[in-house]
Amino acid sequence: MQTISSTDIDGMERFYRANLVNSLTGFKSVSLIGTANAAGKTNLGIFSSIVHIGSNPALVGYINRPIKAAPHTLANIEATGTYTINHIHPEFLPQAQQTSAKYDESISEFEAVGLTPQYLEDIAAPFVLESKVKYALTLQQIIPISLNDTFLVIGKITSIHLEKNILNQDGFLNLDQVPSLSCNGTGTYYLANAIADLPYAKPNQ
Amino acid sequence: MQTISSTDIDGMERFYRANLVNSLTGFKSVSLIGTANAAGKTNLGIFSSIVHIGSNPALVGYINRPIKAAPHTLANIEATGTYTINHIHPEFLPQAQQTSAKYDESISEFEAVGLTPQYLEDIAAPFVLESKVKYALTLQQIIPISLNDTFLVIGKITSIHLEKNILNQDGFLNLDQVPSLSCNGTGTYYLANAIADLPYAKPNQ
Repeated sequence: MQTISSTDIDGMERFYRANLVNSLTGFKSVSLIGTANAAGKTNLGIFSSIVHIGSNPALVGYINRPIKAAPHTLANIEATGTYTINHIHPEFLPQAQQTSAKYDESISEFEAVGLTPQYLEDIAAPFVLESKVKYALTLQQIIPISLNDTFLVIGKITSIHLEKNILNQDGFLNLDQVPSLSCNGTGTYYLANAIADLPYAKPNQ
Repeated sequence: MQTISSTDIDGMERFYRANLVNSLTGFKSVSLIGTANAAGKTNLGIFSSIVHIGSNPALVGYINRPIKAAPHTLANIEATGTYTINHIHPEFLPQAQQTSAKYDESISEFEAVGLTPQYLEDIAAPFVLESKVKYALTLQQIIPISLNDTFLVIGKITSIHLEKNILNQDGFLNLDQVPSLSCNGTGTYYLANAIADLPYAKPNQ
């Protein structure tokens, strides 16, 4: 085995450390978060820090980087109380990754990268038309993480929009058949192949 | 498209809703968290809610379910201030999944499922010997999430232990070559196949 110490980590070049720590936590879901400001100006950003908080109520969190580094998504969520999370598929991966470029606030990433805002029901935030698995949330809580000036942003799912035929009889979504992508590090994307579907575990099995 | 409303979600049978919401957030990293209580009694649990908080300092979070549902891991982390996160590989997947069974506090999941506790340096928490990518953390903060009585537990990485030859020159870890597994829902496991490695995005590319 190869051992890397805390001192090694502290002394690493910035991008090397970011690659290592980002990839160490493992494969992640990757999605586009769609928002709009109070005037309806849209914003679209790529996030790989989405985390399941609970199913009842249906709560989903994501980590927002410090305000200076990523101001628009969080400001829009605070302004409107709503946002959408949209899965990414191979056919629009280059456009999705391109949303991570630092565009000026006056530019909508939808237009800049060539994805299509979609408005469903009376939700103020845009979905991504091209996405086949997407959901809307209402903001529940923004929890500041003072350790590094990030935020845990928690929303409640208010509607889900799915391509037909991916919802199993038991509620499970066959995301590998869509396919939805996962990622690791800052720019490596993966298809997932199911190898096992294991039952609920009980002692003495 | 198929639309599922907030009212639909509220009215779902409990396990159906858990499957849907758990799978909707996408593919997740899945790891074993190793802990010990103050007397050295070990505990091992499987978690799919690990989230990257930041690289400098190197902070990793996970969501701990309500204390009543999952008391031992968090109590041990509070008692010793340390824990390990261990990737899961196909050769011990059945054992890893079996740690999710509700064992009595007197039983160590290591013994019950047949995985080997490994002690490295002077870290009180056990690693999983069989794991090829693992890291130790010191507790930084436990943030209660009052919305559903869960906790965001944040630790700082203090050491990393890797199988040789998976660390790239730029710090990135080739987890698909180990391979480390990802999961979705409550028991479906995946291998990941890289399809794209995209550069850092800039406007006007």
